[in-house]
Amino acid sequence: MTTARRVPQFPASTPAADLYDVIQRRRDVRSEFTGGEIPDDVLDRVLTAAHSAPSVGLSQPWDFVLVRDESTRRSFREHVLAERSVFAAQLRGERAQTFSKIKVEGIVESSMGVVVTYDPDRGAPEVLGRHAIADAGLYSVCLAIQNLWLTATAEGLGVGWVSFYREEFLRRLLDIPTGVRPVAWLCVGPVRALADTPDLERHGWRRRLPLEKVVHYEKYRHGLAR
Amino acid sequence: MTTARRVPQFPASTPAADLYDVIQRRRDVRSEFTGGEIPDDVLDRVLTAAHSAPSVGLSQPWDFVLVRDESTRRSFREHVLAERSVFAAQLRGERAQTFSKIKVEGIVESSMGVVVTYDPDRGAPEVLGRHAIADAGLYSVCLAIQNLWLTATAEGLGVGWVSFYREEFLRRLLDIPTGVRPVAWLCVGPVRALADTPDLERHGWRRRLPLEKVVHYEKYRHGLAR
Repeated sequence: MTTARRVPQFPASTPAADLYDVIQRRRDVRSEFTGGEIPDDVLDRVLTAAHSAPSVGLSQPWDFVLVRDESTRRSFREHVLAERSVFAAQLRGERAQTFSKIKVEGIVESSMGVVVTYDPDRGAPEVLGRHAIADAGLYSVCLAIQNLWLTATAEGLGVGWVSFYREEFLRRLLDIPTGVRPVAWLCVGPVRALADTPDLERHGWRRRLPLEKVVHYEKYRHGLAR
Repeated sequence: MTTARRVPQFPASTPAADLYDVIQRRRDVRSEFTGGEIPDDVLDRVLTAAHSAPSVGLSQPWDFVLVRDESTRRSFREHVLAERSVFAAQLRGERAQTFSKIKVEGIVESSMGVVVTYDPDRGAPEVLGRHAIADAGLYSVCLAIQNLWLTATAEGLGVGWVSFYREEFLRRLLDIPTGVRPVAWLCVGPVRALADTPDLERHGWRRRLPLEKVVHYEKYRHGLAR
């Protein structure tokens, strides 16, 4: 085997960004998109970061569909708003009232949709590390999404993960083959600012758990906060 | 609503770490663990970072079980080696030969196992953003894992995701309740060094795809490299 470096490199002009600061500032964005252009070099760094994520058996089972077309985005938005109503119809009282104030998508206001998909056939049938856990490939795709999200935040972009949709609708909309699974529609683009507090917390939907509620020692303890 | 910041803060003593550098240096570690202690403040920052990940409906459906106990780790390792043999038995010729050289776990050599689980009941039944995509909660758990992985890398720790196991075995081993799903056993600990090239690439298991093979415009294109 050659020992040449095959790992993708970021160009020397890549800006510095503090990891912890980015983790703390990152938000799920719906309202703050400017609609401005994403410079090509920025988009390239963000996608390179996503593509540098770990993956089961080095299968890299992700794909990224960049959707700028306005009519595609409007069709998707219409579907998402219908699904929002489906969810809203399940709620009663205070929950319904609180939800009514929460915006769940910035599909048209953002600069583009980045649709991330999972292809279970990539590297198959001998995907190292997947024989016992079929979902391991799906997990890899999510790791790529988090790399994308963090670097986008570092670059002054906002990211909003929209999940009010039926996978089959999105598959047909983007001509995604059967067997390839859409995992996320990410609204991506420059933002005016990132909120200090997550939207859902600010609107009183849910409060964060303290860390100590989710850390266990040696064995899983029962009876934790839900 | 109060506008007080509820978001967890990292302490002022948190070291700086360049995000892009960390993404590039991060590796899936099996062989380089020293077995040394993880300082408490480091562990706290890494878990705080994981717990700062985005989650569907702010459900934060993850838990972290920190496993230091040696007999638990030895039991898990025995199970993993048996599952390794199950996978190896499926391989023929060059694949079998190549796989035989690849180490798939550092369960006992690392400093601890961090077992990450998914609790679908947290925030249920009204998890905002999950009615149409049941797996959205599982996706959130993976975002937390990537935050953990990156910050661990920044702190000089290695992380190795072990997936050669049956979920039911791990559930029984750690007394994880039915309905809570183990997502990952992460081997975590100080490392001598991180490899320049991923193990699987170095051993000739699989080469990375170039980024342009996984980027599509407007629609998913067919016939991409597998």
